[in-house]
Amino acid sequence: MVCENFDYSTFNNNHGELENDRRKKIAIVGGGNWGSAIACVVGKTVKKQSDVFQPIVSMYCRDSRKPGDKSPSIADTINSTHENSKYLPGRRIPSNVIATTSLLDACSSAHILILVVPHQGIPQICSELNGKLQPGAHAVSLTKGISSSPDGAKMKMRLISEDIEQALGVECSVLMGANLAGEVADGKFCEATIGCKSLKHGEELKMVFDTPNFRIRVTTDFEAVELCGALKNIVACAAGFADGLGWAYNVKSAIIRLGLLETKKFVEHFYPASGTEGHAYFESCGVADLITTCYGGRNRKVAEAFIKSDKPLQQVEKELLNGQSAQGPPTAQDVFEMLEMHEISARFPIFESVHKIFVGEHCEQNLYDAVRNHPDYD
Amino acid sequence: MVCENFDYSTFNNNHGELENDRRKKIAIVGGGNWGSAIACVVGKTVKKQSDVFQPIVSMYCRDSRKPGDKSPSIADTINSTHENSKYLPGRRIPSNVIATTSLLDACSSAHILILVVPHQGIPQICSELNGKLQPGAHAVSLTKGISSSPDGAKMKMRLISEDIEQALGVECSVLMGANLAGEVADGKFCEATIGCKSLKHGEELKMVFDTPNFRIRVTTDFEAVELCGALKNIVACAAGFADGLGWAYNVKSAIIRLGLLETKKFVEHFYPASGTEGHAYFESCGVADLITTCYGGRNRKVAEAFIKSDKPLQQVEKELLNGQSAQGPPTAQDVFEMLEMHEISARFPIFESVHKIFVGEHCEQNLYDAVRNHPDYD
Repeated sequence: MVCENFDYSTFNNNHGELENDRRKKIAIVGGGNWGSAIACVVGKTVKKQSDVFQPIVSMYCRDSRKPGDKSPSIADTINSTHENSKYLPGRRIPSNVIATTSLLDACSSAHILILVVPHQGIPQICSELNGKLQPGAHAVSLTKGISSSPDGAKMKMRLISEDIEQALGVECSVLMGANLAGEVADGKFCEATIGCKSLKHGEELKMVFDTPNFRIRVTTDFEAVELCGALKNIVACAAGFADGLGWAYNVKSAIIRLGLLETKKFVEHFYPASGTEGHAYFESCGVADLITTCYGGRNRKVAEAFIKSDKPLQQVEKELLNGQSAQGPPTAQDVFEMLEMHEISARFPIFESVHKIFVGEHCEQNLYDAVRNHPDYD
Repeated sequence: MVCENFDYSTFNNNHGELENDRRKKIAIVGGGNWGSAIACVVGKTVKKQSDVFQPIVSMYCRDSRKPGDKSPSIADTINSTHENSKYLPGRRIPSNVIATTSLLDACSSAHILILVVPHQGIPQICSELNGKLQPGAHAVSLTKGISSSPDGAKMKMRLISEDIEQALGVECSVLMGANLAGEVADGKFCEATIGCKSLKHGEELKMVFDTPNFRIRVTTDFEAVELCGALKNIVACAAGFADGLGWAYNVKSAIIRLGLLETKKFVEHFYPASGTEGHAYFESCGVADLITTCYGGRNRKVAEAFIKSDKPLQQVEKELLNGQSAQGPPTAQDVFEMLEMHEISARFPIFESVHKIFVGEHCEQNLYDAVRNHPDYD
């Protein structure tokens, strides 16, 4: 469901008068490429809505310096130069975004947490923040991946937003969509989808992110939104393999379509109540993000280089991503293990083949057969 | 609805014995790029199913030589060299495909007509064939475009397949999908969707086209299938403009997504009973064809060149398409006129802007605004 008409006069202030301490404070958790691009957007939107949001946005950037390294931290660099020269060089981060290496300093007074860290970093972040947040705070996750929780002998499928909700005790929405970080930071036009549990939070988050050049739509179909964001990275790896192998346009389009169908099937299997009408797939998080990622994203790039060389994945990532990693390969592994545990991997041959190519168990021909003999054609 | 289980033992022969004259004869009408690629596929499939189909496929190629031109016709060239050197050079057309410049010779004994001519050529073809076909013959249209019929003061929306059905008095299915002609002719993997009224004909057509490298799915949602095939050419023109203007990945993806939404909205408006569950958009004729066309097709190419130069459209087409034309511009015009007549063009700003750019009434900024202020964001 998409709702656009939320009454902010009531939401902001029931008493007709704004007090400073009723304005919402925003914290960004994550100082990578995407976190920095989002800081460029959010720094500007809060300044324009100073009746609703506190003008200072805090931004947690992990101190990744090795012991003895005397160079400034990323947080220091951002605060002095207003640029993340390591992960988003050449783009100005607004000066009302104040970076810090202290997670608690960044988050303890915040009402809205924007989580933009790799999946692997989530447990540590949540454990440090547990019990330290403002009452009524809520979060939005921009992290792509899937999680799991013990369920007898099997593992139960979990969303990362569910992990965050459980670990922090706050409601967690998601933001996914067709947005390459550099283009977003440059203020080029793009779209995104917010998947939320309550429209009150969804519409508040729309105010945080929406600009004339960053158009946001809100839907309560949050499971499909989050899984579109996670699984598209696997499809993009398949698309990257196709590019690396010199396959034709028609094949790549078939891979993207079949990948979208596997995504839909995955959502339907694990969250049968979500996405039944298929709306999420027509949102930016669906078909648009898939196209952007399969043509312009880092997962496509890494997969293309991986299949063309004999280098290990880590080496390829190191050469291409400047210290960051691609989320497709670990998501493919997590998804494949989940499918195996639930004995349904045969229905997802593209997801399976992507994982097996990365771990050396499949070759080019297996992927081609996964496409040609896809169960969708039966 | 997609059906895969059709009993061909009953269909082929109710009496347990095949007779030569019960085998179906196939005719291809159209000797252009796509008609020739389809001849490569169909020539092979019928040879492998000689119990069902007559091995000789006839192919009508219009004699486009000017008076006094002594060079061989395309039909002669195909019959002597098994290649359409003008429109599909370098690809071998199977020798059981026999070309002719006589429409009646090609079609009068055929049971299945494959129509692969530009929209503009359909009325003449149908008028010549009217009353001259085998009893029980049926057709499949690969032509992209929309039609109309008088309806009081307004014009009523019509499908090209409806025109064919009315003019020929035979049932007409459609085949649409992500298939660039050259790649199909080369036997590279691709997919297509057949939209049919009766599954008996749909499944028979699947036998005509389906190969391990040309995978066919059948659905009765024929209006959505046909309109996906027609309207994607308009979206591809918008994508080509975006490329020509150097717009970013995110913008192009947004254009493709919004174009898909306009397509869906168009189908829902004119054929409210079709495509309500959105399945056709997940078929090859939907998202896959859209991606292929927006990245690799001739409409994208023509639109990109058009917006980068000051040349008239016809000149650009002449330079790029070797005498063929792109279907996007005339379809955009037909669609815009239909939308205006029904007073709903404001809901289709991308379709509108594409047409108006081609006729010089819109510039770059109008298209950008059509995207940024799209009613989907309201």
